[in-house]
Amino acid sequence: MSISVLRTADAWYAVTPSGAAPIDTAADSTARLLADREAIDAAAAGAATVPVEELSLVSPVTAPCRVVAQMTNFASHAADAGLDPKAVPLTFFRKSSGSISGPREDIVRPAHVRLLDYEVEIGLVIGRPVPVGAAVDDLADAVAGLVVANDVSARDLQLPKTQFYESKSYPTFTPVGPALVLLDADELRRFADLRLRLRVNGEPRQDRTAADMIHRPVEALRALARFQRLDPGDLLLTGTPVGTALSAPPKPVQKLSSLLPDATRWRLFFKTEARNPRYLRDGDVVEASVATDDGAIDLGTQRTTVRDAR
Amino acid sequence: MSISVLRTADAWYAVTPSGAAPIDTAADSTARLLADREAIDAAAAGAATVPVEELSLVSPVTAPCRVVAQMTNFASHAADAGLDPKAVPLTFFRKSSGSISGPREDIVRPAHVRLLDYEVEIGLVIGRPVPVGAAVDDLADAVAGLVVANDVSARDLQLPKTQFYESKSYPTFTPVGPALVLLDADELRRFADLRLRLRVNGEPRQDRTAADMIHRPVEALRALARFQRLDPGDLLLTGTPVGTALSAPPKPVQKLSSLLPDATRWRLFFKTEARNPRYLRDGDVVEASVATDDGAIDLGTQRTTVRDAR
Repeated sequence: MSISVLRTADAWYAVTPSGAAPIDTAADSTARLLADREAIDAAAAGAATVPVEELSLVSPVTAPCRVVAQMTNFASHAADAGLDPKAVPLTFFRKSSGSISGPREDIVRPAHVRLLDYEVEIGLVIGRPVPVGAAVDDLADAVAGLVVANDVSARDLQLPKTQFYESKSYPTFTPVGPALVLLDADELRRFADLRLRLRVNGEPRQDRTAADMIHRPVEALRALARFQRLDPGDLLLTGTPVGTALSAPPKPVQKLSSLLPDATRWRLFFKTEARNPRYLRDGDVVEASVATDDGAIDLGTQRTTVRDAR
Repeated sequence: MSISVLRTADAWYAVTPSGAAPIDTAADSTARLLADREAIDAAAAGAATVPVEELSLVSPVTAPCRVVAQMTNFASHAADAGLDPKAVPLTFFRKSSGSISGPREDIVRPAHVRLLDYEVEIGLVIGRPVPVGAAVDDLADAVAGLVVANDVSARDLQLPKTQFYESKSYPTFTPVGPALVLLDADELRRFADLRLRLRVNGEPRQDRTAADMIHRPVEALRALARFQRLDPGDLLLTGTPVGTALSAPPKPVQKLSSLLPDATRWRLFFKTEARNPRYLRDGDVVEASVATDDGAIDLGTQRTTVRDAR
């Protein structure tokens, strides 16, 4: 049975039918909490002391940790970018764990960023050490649970720089939570049934199930384990479906524009994109949720507000 | 005055005119060693106990740490790739710190990697916390010292995936050392005089000074501090000059080939590159050095051998 774990500035809680029950642990990181599974189970079976809505939640995934993310990984997103989903290689990049923020915190737009975009994703939270060369046959071999995440992206930095690291690593660019939902092996096998949804000011923008993924999470973990060690508390973001503010121009246009000098091409592109009303602005409310349609697995909803840096 | 710090599996040493003097410290990481500056200075002023060449050196930069690297950052390298150096944006990517290896260790080529390349680089070793938003006016505000590094790259993974993370993060893909050379503010101001050299089996492949850099290290640290915290012991790799095995085709050829389907383009490219004898092979000896031409600052020479994974 799944257990939803919540975190506040000074405590961890398990969600019970009657509210949040504090977990009796001294853990100061997600890794240490996961090592204290008995305390989590005891809280989940115990008495609630506080209504969930009264908690001031912070991210249930603590920094520092490794944050690894998958590039284009939904067929719908690939098709939208004019790519053949079958030809999209399994590709990773890193985000700074300093970008992790809470499920109710503001997303802060730095003054020099103009095209701020959203990407709802499912985050795998690693539960066991996965050394380089480890075999991963089943998600449960490596994964303790799942989280909702938003892979916030500064498109005007990302595209000309080509490497995604900076554009996705500013503080508050990875809202995580509300809950770290611990799942057993059978529940993890329902991964493809999880539906990712994102709304901006109530308007639906993204809505697809993980069945749309090109490279499944077990495959991704296997590929990672070829070169990169993972440890408990690390976070793997598994890609986002179609519906981001950035919608790539059709492939023929891309190919023709590739004949222009880079500076000219980007100037034209950003001029067009500046008129795209879907990018995030000060005051926008972003709601991101992940759950199976039958509600059996529910990672919850994060609700963040976009604020311009002062 | 510069001090060269060496590390073995169980001790740290300062290089003195008569040999290596052990540093009286319990530090188990580069960050902790740097906090113990008095012990380093005492060793540097003290008596040597062992000839440097008798030490079995490991990397003087310990993992885990952040390894951040700069993309194309030498005018000669940019020109070789058909780019206008003035138009190259200041761009970072991450490498796994699990890729760090010692200055005499083997570089292991994974069986699935065909185009293994080298990149001699100067690594900045961070000496003080640099929080997001920190001002960096002078290299000495952030940097404790410099190291020789090789940013080993699997080109056949790097190019089709476009994100550099995996292709540069396999174990042994970041040989570091031999020494961590601690430098004062005046010495760090001579950064542009440092000459990077790399030879394969005695044949010169790379030879340029840091004056060829497009974005100077102070500028890079300032750009990093906009979004990414740094801490003592972290490593920033500052780019490589012309001379890698991979030499990009001229821009017009790139633009025409961009009209071909991706799969076709890569097949053609790898077919050509497979005949390029400059890629690293089993048994190749790679020597990488960094020093000023007058020898006043000398980061030493690393000597690694390429081995196919068994």
